[in-house]
Amino acid sequence: MGGGLKRIAILGSTGSIGQQTLEVARVFRDRLSVVGLGAGSNTRLLASQVNEFQPRMVSFQGSKTDLRRRLPSGRTSSPKMVSLEEMASHPDVDLVVIVTAGKAGLAPTLVAIRARKEVALANKEVLVMAGALVMAEAKKHGVKIRPVDSEHSAIWQCLKGEQKKKVARLLLTASGGPFLRYPAKKLAEITTEQALNHPTWKMGRKVTVDSATLMNKGMEVIEAHWLFGMPYSRISVVVHAESIVHSMVQFADGSIKAQLSRPDMRLPIQYALVYPDRHFNPQLPIMEWDKSMALNFEPPDLVRFPCLRLAQEAGEKGGTYPAVLCAADEVAVELFLSHQISLTDIARLVEDALERHRGVRRPSLEDILEADGWARGHAKKWRNR
Amino acid sequence: MGGGLKRIAILGSTGSIGQQTLEVARVFRDRLSVVGLGAGSNTRLLASQVNEFQPRMVSFQGSKTDLRRRLPSGRTSSPKMVSLEEMASHPDVDLVVIVTAGKAGLAPTLVAIRARKEVALANKEVLVMAGALVMAEAKKHGVKIRPVDSEHSAIWQCLKGEQKKKVARLLLTASGGPFLRYPAKKLAEITTEQALNHPTWKMGRKVTVDSATLMNKGMEVIEAHWLFGMPYSRISVVVHAESIVHSMVQFADGSIKAQLSRPDMRLPIQYALVYPDRHFNPQLPIMEWDKSMALNFEPPDLVRFPCLRLAQEAGEKGGTYPAVLCAADEVAVELFLSHQISLTDIARLVEDALERHRGVRRPSLEDILEADGWARGHAKKWRNR
Repeated sequence: MGGGLKRIAILGSTGSIGQQTLEVARVFRDRLSVVGLGAGSNTRLLASQVNEFQPRMVSFQGSKTDLRRRLPSGRTSSPKMVSLEEMASHPDVDLVVIVTAGKAGLAPTLVAIRARKEVALANKEVLVMAGALVMAEAKKHGVKIRPVDSEHSAIWQCLKGEQKKKVARLLLTASGGPFLRYPAKKLAEITTEQALNHPTWKMGRKVTVDSATLMNKGMEVIEAHWLFGMPYSRISVVVHAESIVHSMVQFADGSIKAQLSRPDMRLPIQYALVYPDRHFNPQLPIMEWDKSMALNFEPPDLVRFPCLRLAQEAGEKGGTYPAVLCAADEVAVELFLSHQISLTDIARLVEDALERHRGVRRPSLEDILEADGWARGHAKKWRNR
Repeated sequence: MGGGLKRIAILGSTGSIGQQTLEVARVFRDRLSVVGLGAGSNTRLLASQVNEFQPRMVSFQGSKTDLRRRLPSGRTSSPKMVSLEEMASHPDVDLVVIVTAGKAGLAPTLVAIRARKEVALANKEVLVMAGALVMAEAKKHGVKIRPVDSEHSAIWQCLKGEQKKKVARLLLTASGGPFLRYPAKKLAEITTEQALNHPTWKMGRKVTVDSATLMNKGMEVIEAHWLFGMPYSRISVVVHAESIVHSMVQFADGSIKAQLSRPDMRLPIQYALVYPDRHFNPQLPIMEWDKSMALNFEPPDLVRFPCLRLAQEAGEKGGTYPAVLCAADEVAVELFLSHQISLTDIARLVEDALERHRGVRRPSLEDILEADGWARGHAKKWRNR
């Protein structure tokens, strides 16, 4: 770290969380230097980000010629084109922010851990698919993974200064999605437009649908299991429609700590970037207490939202089952978004894949990727009977 | 400390909080040894506590002969009779729990601080009357005062692991008392029986009436000011009728931490006794999340509950004003409980005393006690016009 400036690489900078990570970096230019940007296909946005932040390195899956054409020729130096793995292990990088969607985040995360980088993780699949592997590597290399999800950030914040052995229970809050009060019988008729309209959070399409089925919360249970080393029997989900309490920790003496804020992903992103410090950010919303407010809590309905149960079961079975859950869900959500299956079919498809999968107990990365491939193939062939 | 056992003296053991402190000590006999008990006048209860806990020292304001008569003669050694000050500074004591009501706690607190004891403070008046003096002594002798009030314990817990300079605001929650929704016009007609029926907390008569007028919360604002070194402009009161969230801290980045539990004073007492540790206590209630629950928040109504405003103003004026607030309120509550003035007269009496008082800016202990005496005299003569 040169002069107190933390050098960060953002893998997945053109996605929703990636863009918000850059919004935070823009506010804290005196503390955070963006030295690497990685993106998949959005040439125009990546070019604009490169022009603004002038990173030394860029990783791009799309046409590099197209990207170069969009960068002004007057720049003193063009960014070096590298792979995600090169960026994640580059000596000029202090903190690697993994915001890529899906399993693309897996290899760079492992590379960053092995290079002993600070790692901020916003990619769910990395821990859901390969939590045992990733956490074993993190332990081996003395790397503490910084969560970026609002729920896991809340738990991380509540654990600050507390002893891990005194934690009795993690309480993950769930907004319940747009269909919390929807008649159970009508869940099958929900359109993609309805499913993409989340009440409290603005997110990408895949995670918005996962929020509507509570699969997203189920995956977060698996993530919490790995991040905080907590058995599934001591992780509960509490539905909290207002999304103000982002999660809670219950301690041995019965005391509970909760973390609250107006829903805005830039807060947990900022916390992960400047941890263990906290800084005023004029762009972040401040909670006002000068009006009446009700915070509601209720247990989740596992009958209406079977994806939460499926994820918890896959987590408890362990091995390659969570990877199958992830892959089958990803295909199922694509099928739903392209109007080929109904919203309630997502759980059916995932359950079928989990039932038919022959799990590997202590999988290698290859076993996990093989299970992923098998589940995708199985899911694509699946038809609602 | 002998063999990991913390030796505690409880000053005010026969009061409500004193009894609950002993309930906690009973559960943790392997960690806490009760070496001193102090009480005012309840001979029977003190004798029973002495018989059970066999302290080395006892301080008693009532008849020592009566007390000795109630102790079984077969005991190997009678407890030594000492003053509260002797107990608070005795070399055999590690932690002094100050649970005495009113200004009786002031001298022993200062003595305990000067003897560099650990100090757990449940007495409001000590900090309200003499916060500047007490905190200056605590700083001088390197003593961190442990709060026992549920609100201050909540803030203390939320601050664990956080930097004090990153605290933006303290949010003290208030149940709002039994008259939160009572018609403003009818507040003057409230009977002592109605005022003594608190919705969520079981407490002594004085503090129950103070909760009904919100004077209690106002005094807690002054306590929070001293305990956490926070200006009054950054301490807010939020009405929260359910008394589940015991208080909150808002940080520089807008993140808020809250501490929650079912209302039970034994939790903050235990936290103060075994800090920084946490232990399972089978007697403490555990929050269940398997039913729907609503937590409501609203701003306090300073017009209907002027005592809160009066306390905040007295706190901001500083000097001897908070001592006058305390003393005038104590007399006013006595007058209300003996049916001589109405509930709404309490604020009028206190406001009159504050207006007529000639404050001392940097008072000595003598100045404070003189202001206390003046305010009592003034209050006793006060008649509703």
